[in-house]
Amino acid sequence: MRFLVSASCRAMSAAVQGRPRGLVYEKHGEPDRVVQLKDVSLPELGASGVHVRMLAAPINPSDINMIQGSYAVVPDFPAVGGNEGVGQVVQIGSNVTSLKPGDLVIPADAGLGTWRTEAVFEEEKLLKMPPDIPLLSAATLGVNPCTAFRMLSDFVTLKPGDAVIQNAANSGAGQAVIQIAAAKGIKTINVVRDRPNLQELVDRLKSLGADHVITEEALRKPETKDLLQKIPKPLLALDAVGGKSATEMLRHLQYKGTMVTYGGMSKQPVTIPMSALIFKDIRLRGFWMTQWKRDNAQNKEKLSGMIAELCTLIQKGQLTAPACHEVPLADYQLALKASMTPYVTAKQILRM
Amino acid sequence: MRFLVSASCRAMSAAVQGRPRGLVYEKHGEPDRVVQLKDVSLPELGASGVHVRMLAAPINPSDINMIQGSYAVVPDFPAVGGNEGVGQVVQIGSNVTSLKPGDLVIPADAGLGTWRTEAVFEEEKLLKMPPDIPLLSAATLGVNPCTAFRMLSDFVTLKPGDAVIQNAANSGAGQAVIQIAAAKGIKTINVVRDRPNLQELVDRLKSLGADHVITEEALRKPETKDLLQKIPKPLLALDAVGGKSATEMLRHLQYKGTMVTYGGMSKQPVTIPMSALIFKDIRLRGFWMTQWKRDNAQNKEKLSGMIAELCTLIQKGQLTAPACHEVPLADYQLALKASMTPYVTAKQILRM
Repeated sequence: MRFLVSASCRAMSAAVQGRPRGLVYEKHGEPDRVVQLKDVSLPELGASGVHVRMLAAPINPSDINMIQGSYAVVPDFPAVGGNEGVGQVVQIGSNVTSLKPGDLVIPADAGLGTWRTEAVFEEEKLLKMPPDIPLLSAATLGVNPCTAFRMLSDFVTLKPGDAVIQNAANSGAGQAVIQIAAAKGIKTINVVRDRPNLQELVDRLKSLGADHVITEEALRKPETKDLLQKIPKPLLALDAVGGKSATEMLRHLQYKGTMVTYGGMSKQPVTIPMSALIFKDIRLRGFWMTQWKRDNAQNKEKLSGMIAELCTLIQKGQLTAPACHEVPLADYQLALKASMTPYVTAKQILRM
Repeated sequence: MRFLVSASCRAMSAAVQGRPRGLVYEKHGEPDRVVQLKDVSLPELGASGVHVRMLAAPINPSDINMIQGSYAVVPDFPAVGGNEGVGQVVQIGSNVTSLKPGDLVIPADAGLGTWRTEAVFEEEKLLKMPPDIPLLSAATLGVNPCTAFRMLSDFVTLKPGDAVIQNAANSGAGQAVIQIAAAKGIKTINVVRDRPNLQELVDRLKSLGADHVITEEALRKPETKDLLQKIPKPLLALDAVGGKSATEMLRHLQYKGTMVTYGGMSKQPVTIPMSALIFKDIRLRGFWMTQWKRDNAQNKEKLSGMIAELCTLIQKGQLTAPACHEVPLADYQLALKASMTPYVTAKQILRM
C-alpha cells in the first residue's frame, strides 16, 4: 500500500482536474450525519498564497472529536474536515520563495482543513517534504510522529538503554514512539488491550522495534514484575488512555519519573495516589501537538528541524507509516465509519 | 505563649537535670497505646558528637503517621518519637567547630527522635539558630516553614503580584505559606474547611497576610469566580488534601500552572481531568521536605541559607510560629490525643 510519488505522477498531478471539492460540515454532530462532500470555492492566490492539490489525508481521532464538538479547537463554520495530509504545489504567488510547483507539502499547523481536492494556503502554513518520502509517510507525519518525537525529547533526558512505558502502543503515535525510541536505542514497554489476534499485534509491534508488548491485564499481574526487572525501570510513561491504565503505568515508573498524558481514550480522568507524588516524586505533564505548534509558530526552524530529523529516519527505513487503508474521497462515509470502529487498527487515508 | 530564651535561662539550661528520658515506641500502633515515657541511654559523646538538652518539640501529623506505621519512613525499634524541635548545646566533642555550649540548635534531618530530654547528635545533623529566635519559632521551623519556602521557590517563578492558591490553609505549612508569600508580595487564595467559628479563622489568617480565605464549599460556587477575577489566576496550587479539594483547585489554576501535592489529608487520590493536562498544560508535582533534606545532605549551605532567610523573616516579625499549646513532656498522652483531634488548630508542643 505504500508507494513513492514518482516524477511522472507528480508532473501529471500538477494539473488540477474538476471543480474543487471538500468534506464540509456546517455544525457539530456525528460525522456520518454532518459531513458532506461539496464544491468548495478557492480564494484568490495572492502574493503569499500557494495553490495546492491535495493527494492524501488521514482521518485521525482528533478530527472526529473536532467534528463532534468535543475537541479543544472549534472551527468556524462551514468548516472543511481534516488537520493532516500531503499535497503538491500547483502554483505559487509572486512573493513565495520557499516552494515551487511540484513540491510535496504538509501543513505546518492544525486547522487548515485537509480533506479536500485542492486549496490555497499561505506559504508560512506549509512545510516542504523531501521528494523521496513515501506518500503515506508524508500524509501521516505532522501529528503522530511529531507527537512521539516531542514526548521523547522534551520531558526527560533519555540515554540509550533507558526505558519508556506507553499504553495504546498500537495507535499511530504509539507506533511512532516504538520506532523513534528504537532508533535512539531506548527500550520500550508497550501496553495494549487484549484482543483475539493478540499474537499478530505483538509480532507486528516487535517487528517495529518494541522490546516488550504486554496487555493491560498482564501489567497488573505479579509475574510481569519479573519480566520488567530485566530492563531499567522506565523514566517516562506516555499515556493516551487515562483511568486505570494510567495509574497502572505509574506503578512501574522509576523514582522521579514523568508521565505525559496526550490522550484520554478511556474518557476517565487520571488518578494518582498521593504517595506517588510525595514519596516517589512522580511528575505529571500533558502534551498537545497543536499547542506546541502554536507556541513555536515564530520559531519555524524548530518545527522544520524536527521534520528533517523524522524524514531522515524515514529515509533510513527506521520510521514507517502506520498500517493504512486508502479510500477514495467519494467513499468518505465508509472511511469515517471505519475510523470510528473499535479495534480497526489500519488508519483510514482519504485519497483525492 | 511565645518568649525569647533569655541569657539567664540559657545559662541555667546548660546544666542537665535528672536522667535522660524520652517518648519511646517499640512497635507500630495507635500512639496512646504504643508510646511510653521511658529512661533512654545516651551514647558516648565522641569527637564529632554534640550533647544537646532538648527544650521544645512539636507533635506533627507525620510524627503520628510514623508511629502508626503509615509513613514512608520506618524507624528502627525501639524508636524515640518526633522529628522536629529545638535544643541547647550542653557539651561538644573535640572535633566540633560549628557549635559551642549554649547555642540553640534544630535538627538538619528527619528521624533524629526529638521527643526526649537530652540526646547526643552528630554535629552534621544540627543547625545553629540565631540567639534571638523565639523558642516556639525555632521548634517549628524545620518542617513547615521550610516546606512552604521550598514550594514557593522551586516549582514556578513567582513575581510580586502573582497569586498562589492553597488548601488546608490553616495548617502549620499553610500559615507559613501565607506569611512567606505576603513577605514576597505574592497574593494567596486560602481554602479552608467550613466550621462554626469560621470568621475567627478568616480574621486570623488575614492578620497573617492572607488575601482571600474561602471555604471548600464556596470555592465550587459561581460567585467565587467573580471574587477570584480581581486577582491574577494562580500559577501555583499547593495541595495538602488530595481528592475533590485538589481537583477543585486545579480548575482555578492559570494555563501552564503547577499543582504541588505535599499531603493527603482526605486520604483520597488526586484526580485530574485529562483536558487539564493536555489542553491547559497543568503540571503536577509532589514535595516532601524529608527527601529534599536527603537530596541536599551534601550541600548544607543550601539548607543553612534557607534557614537564615527564614530567620530573617522571623526577626522582622513577618513569620511567626503557628498557634501552639505547650504541654509538659510528662503529659504527653494529653498532647498526643489533642494532636489527633479534628479542628484542634493549635499545635501541641512538648516542653522538656
